Amino acid sequence: MGLQAGALAAGLGGAPAQAASGFPWQQVPGAPVRLTGEPSPFAPPLRRTLLQGYGAIAPGTGSSWTPLEQLRGTITPAYLHFERHHNGVPAIDPAHFNLVIHGLVNRPLAFDLETLHRYPMVTRQGFIECAGNSLPNSFPEPQAKPCGLIHGLISCSEWTGVPLGLLLEEAGVQAGAQWMLAEGADAASMSRSIPLYPRGDDMLLALYQNGEPLRPEQGYPWRLFLPGYEGNMNVKWLRRLKLSAGPTHTRDETSRYTDLLRDGRAEQFTFVMGVKSVITRPSGGMRLAARGFYELSGLAWSGSGRIACVEVSADGGASWTEAALQSPAQDRSFTLFSIPWHWDGSPARLQSRATDEQGNTQPTRAQWTQRYAPGQRYHYNAIQTWALDAGGNLSNVYA
Amino acid sequence: MGLQAGALAAGLGGAPAQAASGFPWQQVPGAPVRLTGEPSPFAPPLRRTLLQGYGAIAPGTGSSWTPLEQLRGTITPAYLHFERHHNGVPAIDPAHFNLVIHGLVNRPLAFDLETLHRYPMVTRQGFIECAGNSLPNSFPEPQAKPCGLIHGLISCSEWTGVPLGLLLEEAGVQAGAQWMLAEGADAASMSRSIPLYPRGDDMLLALYQNGEPLRPEQGYPWRLFLPGYEGNMNVKWLRRLKLSAGPTHTRDETSRYTDLLRDGRAEQFTFVMGVKSVITRPSGGMRLAARGFYELSGLAWSGSGRIACVEVSADGGASWTEAALQSPAQDRSFTLFSIPWHWDGSPARLQSRATDEQGNTQPTRAQWTQRYAPGQRYHYNAIQTWALDAGGNLSNVYA
Repeated sequence: MGLQAGALAAGLGGAPAQAASGFPWQQVPGAPVRLTGEPSPFAPPLRRTLLQGYGAIAPGTGSSWTPLEQLRGTITPAYLHFERHHNGVPAIDPAHFNLVIHGLVNRPLAFDLETLHRYPMVTRQGFIECAGNSLPNSFPEPQAKPCGLIHGLISCSEWTGVPLGLLLEEAGVQAGAQWMLAEGADAASMSRSIPLYPRGDDMLLALYQNGEPLRPEQGYPWRLFLPGYEGNMNVKWLRRLKLSAGPTHTRDETSRYTDLLRDGRAEQFTFVMGVKSVITRPSGGMRLAARGFYELSGLAWSGSGRIACVEVSADGGASWTEAALQSPAQDRSFTLFSIPWHWDGSPARLQSRATDEQGNTQPTRAQWTQRYAPGQRYHYNAIQTWALDAGGNLSNVYA
Repeated sequence: MGLQAGALAAGLGGAPAQAASGFPWQQVPGAPVRLTGEPSPFAPPLRRTLLQGYGAIAPGTGSSWTPLEQLRGTITPAYLHFERHHNGVPAIDPAHFNLVIHGLVNRPLAFDLETLHRYPMVTRQGFIECAGNSLPNSFPEPQAKPCGLIHGLISCSEWTGVPLGLLLEEAGVQAGAQWMLAEGADAASMSRSIPLYPRGDDMLLALYQNGEPLRPEQGYPWRLFLPGYEGNMNVKWLRRLKLSAGPTHTRDETSRYTDLLRDGRAEQFTFVMGVKSVITRPSGGMRLAARGFYELSGLAWSGSGRIACVEVSADGGASWTEAALQSPAQDRSFTLFSIPWHWDGSPARLQSRATDEQGNTQPTRAQWTQRYAPGQRYHYNAIQTWALDAGGNLSNVYA
C-alpha cells in the first residue's frame, strides 16, 4: 500500500451545522485576567514520564521523557523539556555561584550572574538530545511504548546566552589549548571534554530558554549549549571551564558515552548526534478510528546541519514518497514534516527517513545493529517503524 | 553622544578566579526528576501585570501585560502571553463545543475537536499585538512605566493549527462571499469582520501554542491566528464564521477599534499592525551601574512582513547607526536587534527605529500625534525614547 501524495483533506466530516444558537459560556461572565496562565482542565494533562532506575539508592539518577506525540510544533515548553541527571538537580543560588575559566589561559577569570548580563547575548533555536535517546529500540525485542518513551530524550528550544568565545577571548586562550574540561556543580560533578574547534563559534553559555531564565533542571543559572552535540556535553550548572591541550578522559566520557562496536573496538568522543526522524502522528499506542484521510506528521533533526529531505513509507520501506518540510528549516533544530495519506483499512508499516544537508541518511535498524556491539545504547538513529493493523492500532515494531 | 558600532565586550569585568574548590551543591544529591518543571525560586518571579479598569462592575474586562523587559528571545512563554478580554475567559469543554461555518456557503458545517484533529496542520511563528498596544505613549504626558507596561500588549509564539482555507473549502465558499464574521464564545460574543482576501491563505485555526494546546486565555480549544492583523481579530474561543458579501459592522468594530483622525474623519478596518520596535535592555526603570560597555537590545516587528532594518540612536534621533538583526528574520514575527554601546556617563536619549521589507518606517511621536485626533488609542507605533540621566537611571520620555 503506497502513499497518495497530494490527496486532499476535503470530506473529512464537518457535520451539518445546527442553528447557531450560542453556548452557555456566552451567558455568564468568564474568569478575569491573571498573573500567569495554566493549561485548560479540559485538555489532557501534559507530563514528562519518569524513569528512575536506582530508586531509593540514588534518587537523583534518572531521566524524564518529553511526550513528543502530544506536542505539535518545533518548540518544547520549558516545563516539559526532557531531563537526564546523574545525581539530581542542584538548587543553585546565583548570588553564591560563579563560572571560572582557568587552565591554559592568560587570565583566569570568574564570572557571576551580574557580570554575565553585561555581555552581548545571541538567540538561536536548537535541539538538545541525550546520547542515549531512542535506546529502547536498541533492545533485542521491540518495546510496546509510545513515541515519547522511545524518542523523548530530545527537546527543542530557543536558547539565549553569551557566545562562549567572548568569555574565552577575555580570559585569553593560550596557543596550546585545544580542548576544555566542562564541569557542572551538581553532586555528580558531571564533566566532559569539549574540543575548542571546529564548532567553537557556535557555543553558547545559555541563560534563557524560550524567553525566560533557565529552569533548575535545565541548568539554572546557566548551562552550555553546543548545537548538535550529545546532550550531556551541554553541561548544566556549569562551574568551570579548564582549557587544556588534550581531553581530560573524565569518568563520564570513559565509563559512559563511548560506543562499543561489533568488532570489539570502541569509539570515543562521538560528539555529533546523527540524523533522525520519527512520525509522531499517528504513532505507537494510538488508534485510527476509521479508514480515510490522515496526515502523517513528525519531527526530523540532525546534529550536522539542516534537514534536506524526509521521505515517508507506508509499506515498511519498499516504496518512499517525499514529505513536505516546514519552512524555514533551521540549522540543528527540529524540522516538521508532513504528508497526506489515505488509509484503505489494510495493515501498513509507517516509516520516515531523514537526510540532512551533509547527505547523511538514517540507517535501517539492521544496518545500525550490524555496526554496534550488542548492548550499545548511544547514538541510536535507525528508522522507526510503526505497525498499523487492520483494526487501526499502531505499535512499535522492528522492520 | 553617538554609538560606537563594533565596540568589543572585552574588559567587562570577569574577576580573577579563586582556586576551583567546588560548591556546596556538589556535596549532596540534588532533587530527582519530576513530572513538570518550575522556575527557580532564586530567579525573579515572572508575572503579567493586570489592568482591570472596571473593577467589581465588570471583572472580566481587562488586560494583562507581558513583561517584555524581563524576557530574552523571540518566544513568549505561554503562561506570560498578554491577555485582553471583553467579558472574561470562558472555561470551554470541547466535548460540548464546535465551530460552525455558515452564511454564503454551499454546505453549512460544524467541526468539533476530534474532527479538526483529522485535518492537516501547519506551524508558523508570529506575534499577536493588541490594537491598543503602546497606548500609554499616546497620553499627553509620558508615563513613568517600564517597557512591558507600555508595549507589553504583544507576545510572540509558535502557532500550530489547521489552515482556515481547508475548512472554508469544505464548506464551499459561494461566489459573492468576500468577508466573514468571526464570533467568539465568550460572554461578550466578541465579533469582528474579516476580509477573505488578500490574506486568506495565511489564516490559521490555531489549536496549539508553543507546542502545547492553547491555554484558556488564548482561546482554548481554538482561536483564529491572522498573522500581522490587530490582536482582537484573532478571535478566541471561535464559535462561528459567517460568510457574507460585506462587513457586518459589529459593535466591536464600530464603537471600538476605529481610528479617529485629527481632521475629524475616522478610519475603519485598519487591520494591519504597523512597523514598530523598542529597546528592551536597557529600558525605563532600569539603572546602569557604571560607565562602560553595554549591549542595547530589543524587539522589532511589522504586520506587513519581515523586518529589514533597525537603526539605533543614543542622541534622541540626531544620529543613527544600524543594529545587527537576528537571523533568520521571520515574516510578521519578533525580530531581535542589538548593538554595542559605550556609555561615557553623560545623559543620553536611546531610540530605535524599525523599517520593514515593504519600506514602512516608524514615525516620530510628533508625526504620529499630528495624524490622529487627541484620544486616539489604537495603532500607536511611534519611536520610543528612553532617557538616561547622568546617574544611570532610565525613564520613558517624549523626544
